[in-house]
Amino acid sequence: MRDVFIAGVGQTPITKDPNSRGRYLGAAAVKAALTDAKLDPGRIGALYVGNMLSGVLAHQQQLGGLIADYTGLAGIEAVTIEAACASGGAAVRVAYQAVAGGSHDAVAVCGVERMTHVDRDEVTRALATAADWELEGVCGESFLSLNAKLMRAYMDRYGVTAERFAPFAITAHENALTNPNALLHKPLDLETYLASRVVADPIRLFDVSPVCNGASAVILAAPHVAGELAKGSSVRIAGSALATAPLALSRRADLLELTAVSASTQRAMQQAGIGHDDIDLFEPHDAYTIMTALTLEAAGFTRAGSGLDYADTARIGLRGELPLATFGGLKARGHPVGASGCYQIVEAFLQLTERAGANQVPDAEVALVQNIGGTGATVVTHVLARER
Amino acid sequence: MRDVFIAGVGQTPITKDPNSRGRYLGAAAVKAALTDAKLDPGRIGALYVGNMLSGVLAHQQQLGGLIADYTGLAGIEAVTIEAACASGGAAVRVAYQAVAGGSHDAVAVCGVERMTHVDRDEVTRALATAADWELEGVCGESFLSLNAKLMRAYMDRYGVTAERFAPFAITAHENALTNPNALLHKPLDLETYLASRVVADPIRLFDVSPVCNGASAVILAAPHVAGELAKGSSVRIAGSALATAPLALSRRADLLELTAVSASTQRAMQQAGIGHDDIDLFEPHDAYTIMTALTLEAAGFTRAGSGLDYADTARIGLRGELPLATFGGLKARGHPVGASGCYQIVEAFLQLTERAGANQVPDAEVALVQNIGGTGATVVTHVLARER
Repeated sequence: MRDVFIAGVGQTPITKDPNSRGRYLGAAAVKAALTDAKLDPGRIGALYVGNMLSGVLAHQQQLGGLIADYTGLAGIEAVTIEAACASGGAAVRVAYQAVAGGSHDAVAVCGVERMTHVDRDEVTRALATAADWELEGVCGESFLSLNAKLMRAYMDRYGVTAERFAPFAITAHENALTNPNALLHKPLDLETYLASRVVADPIRLFDVSPVCNGASAVILAAPHVAGELAKGSSVRIAGSALATAPLALSRRADLLELTAVSASTQRAMQQAGIGHDDIDLFEPHDAYTIMTALTLEAAGFTRAGSGLDYADTARIGLRGELPLATFGGLKARGHPVGASGCYQIVEAFLQLTERAGANQVPDAEVALVQNIGGTGATVVTHVLARER
Repeated sequence: MRDVFIAGVGQTPITKDPNSRGRYLGAAAVKAALTDAKLDPGRIGALYVGNMLSGVLAHQQQLGGLIADYTGLAGIEAVTIEAACASGGAAVRVAYQAVAGGSHDAVAVCGVERMTHVDRDEVTRALATAADWELEGVCGESFLSLNAKLMRAYMDRYGVTAERFAPFAITAHENALTNPNALLHKPLDLETYLASRVVADPIRLFDVSPVCNGASAVILAAPHVAGELAKGSSVRIAGSALATAPLALSRRADLLELTAVSASTQRAMQQAGIGHDDIDLFEPHDAYTIMTALTLEAAGFTRAGSGLDYADTARIGLRGELPLATFGGLKARGHPVGASGCYQIVEAFLQLTERAGANQVPDAEVALVQNIGGTGATVVTHVLARER
């Protein structure tokens, strides 16, 4: 299989604007990515759209063809990839395979989601479609309640308090302050975190990523196309993997073991030929602070029960040992669910091309990016590496 | 890119059983395909699920991981592909790329849909998500009304009567009589067709494919895996292409020209190196009789305005010049929307391996299979060829 490079990226600012429209959001992100790549749109062979909720919340399926049309790419191959909140990452994965395997020399990926045009209860119900409806949804479980179960089980098993999770959120808010595309631009400290209301015991408001709208896009290209566009340094997808686990928490061997995180991380890192020490920054799926802790363990950064060792703003800040959520993450940049996985790739690309501005991680050469669907049911992991 | 073979197929009978459950339907089809292929499930690298309506009608997204789990494939790569009624065909297309490109040596594809557990109005609204919601859906357009516009426009432009379309439906019903998996087992004649009620002028009840449930699956394999399994003859995916067109009828240059049918058919046939005379049978997307007429024209079997020349039971019957819908098609086998494209591949495979029983097309060596999303917005075309 061929090497695959990221030739350009685009994103729209994350908003809560109820009047935003999916087709225009998506088209804006793809057009921005094409402009960034300086690639003739006529050379794009396919568009892969990552989306979770358009059918449920906006009566609109078939976003592949729709966004292709509104981007001026009418006629090209285009489909939608769905894996709940991992839809964006999964779309990147399918697009990677299309280029690596030789189907297309250049493709576009677009993650898009619109969530604020309906009331909060409708969003909650829609997000619950990522869980196992028959075993969880019908009992009234929501994504919030399932993550609360995980956090409570974690606190009980390892004897830790809820406030120990705060630094993950505090760091995310800190990084979002200087990200113009982020939804939240408000500093967070431990006092504010502790004063925030408990939305589902033991989860506080600031443990949770916000409901919002947004679209992001990346252009993936084969070596010969990327070579024509090269601007000094370029970014290669050095590892790509997707793994799954049972959707329902009750069907897992251990509630607190994210087996699909382990499997996909190992596979992506093995393909890239890297170890944990080679990773300069990590964009985790920090939809809830508990997910970040569990992810750090399952991804092999530390052992089970020690994920909170990383809940330390110095350790995970932009100049720390392992910078996390460098543009604010799902927590503070915002989590337009089906788009988030693609935003993560955009941000890692900006880091590796030294275009991260005030959010720049010094000397960033290798990034790990991970997008999760459900409470760990679909996990997509990519390793991006700067080539000189 | 490598050759890709179909190693085995599975399907569940099409039903209107409101108690059927998606995860079990899907798992049953995949298990049947694995058994048919005599392939150790441990060798399956990924599962691609084609589905359109589970999120909207069954509160369940992330079917990839869910069906992988219930099939005993927990952990493997698995995602859902959505392209409205072309979801099944699009899943086959993405799976084909994964094997052809070298990502996986063997993968499973599952098309699955459940539509009869909700009332008819809810299904109608859900199906309208395949159209352009902002331009068509909000005005009350349904799939039925959009197809009625196409049929009326066709009749007006070419001066033909509605009854000229009947032979497409009559042939489908005839073929379904001997397909044990078909929903409809009732002979249809012109008299009955003409006596049926007009459901959306000029469309009669018998011009429309029925709402139903079902799941189908295929196993795709690289040459070395297929070679181990070979049973005399095997079927190769000789051509695979997906093209799109604007979703809304109002955004098309010509209402009656299915540009994505033309593009994807040409591309798939060119890849396969075949001409129209080489095609022994055609599984068209006969969701409405008008779609069959328009498809035959756009796919190059005849010129614009002449599609009804094929509306002749002798010409398109099992022993005719161009057998269509050989197991009953969407019209009479049934159209569980996101599953139909995969059923079509299953049926073409059975024809090319001489396992079609009473529905066998004599000496079938090359099949054209086409799955359409919306009123021609996403079109997936495959050419299957028997290898000796």
